[in-house]
Amino acid sequence: MADDIDYARYDHVRPIRWTGTALELLDQRKLPFAVDYLSCTGSDEVAAAIHSLAVRGAPAIGIAAAWGVVLAANAIESAGAAEAATALEPALQRLNAARPTAVNLSWALARMRAALARVEGEGWREALEREARAIASEDLAANRRMGALGASLIEPGSGVLTHCNTGSLATAGFGTALGVIRAGVAQRRIDAVFAGETRPWLQGARLTVWELQQDGIDATLIADSAAAHLMKSGQVQWVVVGADRICANGDVANKIGTYQLAIAARHHGVKFMVVAPSSTVDMATASGDLIEIEERDPAELHAVGGSRTVSEGVAAWNPVFDVTPHALIDAIVTEQGTIEHPDAASMQAAFGTRAAP
Amino acid sequence: MADDIDYARYDHVRPIRWTGTALELLDQRKLPFAVDYLSCTGSDEVAAAIHSLAVRGAPAIGIAAAWGVVLAANAIESAGAAEAATALEPALQRLNAARPTAVNLSWALARMRAALARVEGEGWREALEREARAIASEDLAANRRMGALGASLIEPGSGVLTHCNTGSLATAGFGTALGVIRAGVAQRRIDAVFAGETRPWLQGARLTVWELQQDGIDATLIADSAAAHLMKSGQVQWVVVGADRICANGDVANKIGTYQLAIAARHHGVKFMVVAPSSTVDMATASGDLIEIEERDPAELHAVGGSRTVSEGVAAWNPVFDVTPHALIDAIVTEQGTIEHPDAASMQAAFGTRAAP
Repeated sequence: MADDIDYARYDHVRPIRWTGTALELLDQRKLPFAVDYLSCTGSDEVAAAIHSLAVRGAPAIGIAAAWGVVLAANAIESAGAAEAATALEPALQRLNAARPTAVNLSWALARMRAALARVEGEGWREALEREARAIASEDLAANRRMGALGASLIEPGSGVLTHCNTGSLATAGFGTALGVIRAGVAQRRIDAVFAGETRPWLQGARLTVWELQQDGIDATLIADSAAAHLMKSGQVQWVVVGADRICANGDVANKIGTYQLAIAARHHGVKFMVVAPSSTVDMATASGDLIEIEERDPAELHAVGGSRTVSEGVAAWNPVFDVTPHALIDAIVTEQGTIEHPDAASMQAAFGTRAAP
Repeated sequence: MADDIDYARYDHVRPIRWTGTALELLDQRKLPFAVDYLSCTGSDEVAAAIHSLAVRGAPAIGIAAAWGVVLAANAIESAGAAEAATALEPALQRLNAARPTAVNLSWALARMRAALARVEGEGWREALEREARAIASEDLAANRRMGALGASLIEPGSGVLTHCNTGSLATAGFGTALGVIRAGVAQRRIDAVFAGETRPWLQGARLTVWELQQDGIDATLIADSAAAHLMKSGQVQWVVVGADRICANGDVANKIGTYQLAIAARHHGVKFMVVAPSSTVDMATASGDLIEIEERDPAELHAVGGSRTVSEGVAAWNPVFDVTPHALIDAIVTEQGTIEHPDAASMQAAFGTRAAP
């Protein structure tokens, strides 16, 4: 299905590189003005990079954390897998605590624990490294699969709007929602790409349009609050976004502003697509109401880049995510397939037999 | 009705001060970091201040221009009103050209011309000064009236969300939508005030929260895209905004993002109020579809303050206004009264006999 996509042409950026002894993370706080890789040689450096948003995007966080476990393993001397599992647990827990909402983080760490548990005696270091590499390569393959699946829903001649950054920068490569957009552009289904700035961190302005530039894809930046006016103008037929967590009923937690876009899309008859790997699906959480929304430092709303924008003493409310109810979602695309008009029944049919993460 | 509002306590900011020989304009480009008044002793300085956005907000622009005419009068030696009218015309035209799209600007200058025309012989300088003072004091009185009218719609214990800056800074004082919020706080109807940042110019972040701070009113800043999530949380019962133009069917053109807020408000059962002086009503424009939306320089989306936020060569779409259809508006408040559920019939009943501006 995806044979017509030239991946070499449409996927240049890689945020995570493993050197064999260090994890290099593209420092996304400095983009688009500097392309600097942080070199991490210990798991706590990886946890700090996740916490400080040097690496961001749910799949990328999971991959980085997996390599963080490999780095933690390098720091211990245990000869056997069982002993290593005990010795590694504090590092695993510090990695897990680096970001609260991203389900991929605990999912990736659970995979690393399971890989370790499968080893008896020696060979456990190699098993951990194999598992981290598998998590990354499976993510890239899943993104290409999702790209083809999602793009097939989009009629030729369409315009799309995306939010935040769900691209190569947020994953092992290609991206989730941005992978669908890449595939749609490659297949000439998508004529126009719009990206919201995504305050307060400006992932759309700083990352998404930069990342698409690297692949020669033109995108037009808009203020987040211009989205409804854009939809009314008829320039977009789909909103395509990622997910930080997908609940058992199809409710989706994603970057703040996603919910507002979904409401505006429905108001205008614009379709709304969520694209995320199945590792984002959390069948243990029945609905979005049960998700605790991370609130970050109000100071993120006090400045942009180095420029302070408000006076001293201003209060700010800075929720990082919101929940889009499944009724506003036209399609959820994972690497396992597409669920149109998701609800508890269709989610159960697709993911019900899977163990909770 | 408004006797219970302590205006001295809740209205400290004045963007325009007349000293008798000079016009002092609070330089809004420097807010909230410096409170600097530009001192203008000639009408061309006032025109430059309007053009450069040192003074902004449609009512404030009109008032500044009226005082600009008084300053122009001080520079001429004519003994009679008729001769003065001829001598002043070039200055009037330069003031009018400072922001050619602002309807209040030409409206205020027309009032100054008419005041001059009513004088025969001497006394014309005093007549011009009286008229400028009247334009300012009528604006303040209208705002207080709107404040009381609008606040009466709000149930005690409510939270409100506003957008852009519609306050003392944009008017002779008290503000339009922000006047309703001041009145509601004074009457203890409003417990919580939220202000959207209002990208790309950040009028909410830079001006609104600063202005409310001066009056001891706590406001919480949010990212524009957090508004729907805020509404879902139950923390706001009303969205209260201003208007740049109100059409004959009740459609409202206002700062970009207003439309998106109106859609989200309706989705959550949050009420939506538009507050603007009747001079904003344009009965000659049948509906919002007929309004041409001004688009400003895409570069406004490339930076915040002095900080560039995007890489070179990024395209951006920067509409300044959008149109909120009347069906999404619960109340339009002018100094003449409140129109609930505005439509062509109720607008015609309220404003139909008025001459088009």
